[in-house]
Amino acid sequence: MHINPDGDAIGASLALAEMLQSIGKRAVVYCRDRVPDLCSFMPGHEEIVHSYDPGRTSDSTLVVVDCNTDERAAVDASAFKKSIVIDHHMTEKPFGDIKWVEPSICATGLMIYHIGKALDIPLTSQTALNLYAAISVDTGTFRYSNTTPDTMTAAAELIRAGAKPAIVANHLYNEWSRQRFTLLKEVLKTLEIYGDTAMISATEKMMDETGAKPEDTENFVNFPNMINSINVSVFFRETGGGVWKASLRSKDTVNVAEVAEVFGGGGHKNAAGFRTKEDLGVLKKKLLDYFGPRSR
Amino acid sequence: MHINPDGDAIGASLALAEMLQSIGKRAVVYCRDRVPDLCSFMPGHEEIVHSYDPGRTSDSTLVVVDCNTDERAAVDASAFKKSIVIDHHMTEKPFGDIKWVEPSICATGLMIYHIGKALDIPLTSQTALNLYAAISVDTGTFRYSNTTPDTMTAAAELIRAGAKPAIVANHLYNEWSRQRFTLLKEVLKTLEIYGDTAMISATEKMMDETGAKPEDTENFVNFPNMINSINVSVFFRETGGGVWKASLRSKDTVNVAEVAEVFGGGGHKNAAGFRTKEDLGVLKKKLLDYFGPRSR
Repeated sequence: MHINPDGDAIGASLALAEMLQSIGKRAVVYCRDRVPDLCSFMPGHEEIVHSYDPGRTSDSTLVVVDCNTDERAAVDASAFKKSIVIDHHMTEKPFGDIKWVEPSICATGLMIYHIGKALDIPLTSQTALNLYAAISVDTGTFRYSNTTPDTMTAAAELIRAGAKPAIVANHLYNEWSRQRFTLLKEVLKTLEIYGDTAMISATEKMMDETGAKPEDTENFVNFPNMINSINVSVFFRETGGGVWKASLRSKDTVNVAEVAEVFGGGGHKNAAGFRTKEDLGVLKKKLLDYFGPRSR
Repeated sequence: MHINPDGDAIGASLALAEMLQSIGKRAVVYCRDRVPDLCSFMPGHEEIVHSYDPGRTSDSTLVVVDCNTDERAAVDASAFKKSIVIDHHMTEKPFGDIKWVEPSICATGLMIYHIGKALDIPLTSQTALNLYAAISVDTGTFRYSNTTPDTMTAAAELIRAGAKPAIVANHLYNEWSRQRFTLLKEVLKTLEIYGDTAMISATEKMMDETGAKPEDTENFVNFPNMINSINVSVFFRETGGGVWKASLRSKDTVNVAEVAEVFGGGGHKNAAGFRTKEDLGVLKKKLLDYFGPRSR
């Protein structure tokens, strides 16, 4: 799976491995990085390996899940016999001997669900939970526009196979540490609104004083977007060495990826980000300039 | 529909009326109270009437939706020819010539969906949107434990018929006024934690200073429940005349209805409330006493 894994990467990979094992294949799930606390409820995650021996993979097939190059997964495909790509992100580079990339599908977890169905592999409750969690993460539990009838039909079958919607939702949304909640309160105090643009920030000092972890700021950028007059929300996090990490989210038609690219970052139309050593005051001013008169 | 209507009551009633009209019946949707702003996106809500002439209903059938007595709907059944109940709440009193009450179904909207299917009435995009919104409201968009395979299968068909998940979710969750957001920030500052119990409050002064409306505090009580160590969350709102309105939410096994009943209120196991003239400091202490040593 890709580095800095999310719930879809983890759930889809674990489910695929379990399916392959159930039909007699040896499957190992590799991720360069650790599983975030948020995903520690996903069954089987303890068996994810964080290193592998490239000298012993020449008879193996590499399956790149929820990304579409070996580089993004921090592996070297040349050490493997063959490479398969299963992903729902846009592809930029040619990679993979077999390639299934469907940007219109909400989650890679849903693609793995369809693979299991096509191979007639019975859904265990463990696989169902991992796939339900994967789909939940990438659809905001069925709130994003990528939610389709196919998403819902699969969700119905995954619940039937043992996935519990409330348990997944509680793990994803109601497992905040007190430190994280305290940091959110502090971050919301920094809210500034210019036209339809909202900005919030977390300094290193705030992180230190609250004892929150960098991963705790996940999703903070979405809070100002709850306001009806806001179309663009920006969250700045101080990461040390004078570097700010900016996360941008937009509603509707505003393309934040374009702005992020100007600052050397990237992303999707409605969700993008970048890192910069710019002074925060100057950075805010520059961003407002890019968003144009609409925002003032 | 019941007084103080929510999205399920409104969506289910509007959808039923549209279905009945499509098969040649005359149907009028009555609600004593106004439609909350949150539900103003639901198509057809402008046609809801807020008064009726009891002298002209003797040839009509009363259909009580999302509640199970005429009293709860602020109508007098004796003025009608016949009464039908369609509801998913527990019944306490005998009422209704025809009665369909299914507490295991997540939303009355889902019951109306099944009525439409049984009568073979094609789903219009307007009906689909109202039913999807109704189901979304009562399942927290598929996050509560009342979400079943049947919920998801219906949701799939409603999307196919024209309901847009992201549009519904944006209306329900991302249409906060700035006043409401400012009030939330102020309310979160009042957070106190005792053991696994969290308490937050909104004074009249905070309401005045932020310009927020009482209905804006809807859902505030759920915020502290995002914290993993919290099992009971209480929100107090000062309503004037020295009265506090308390809303209680619990996770898992804690029964907050029992506590609310002690104070003359009521509700469900995980969601209850009451009103009191008690001093806030004394009230907090009493509540902590009721929650027992677990909370200290």
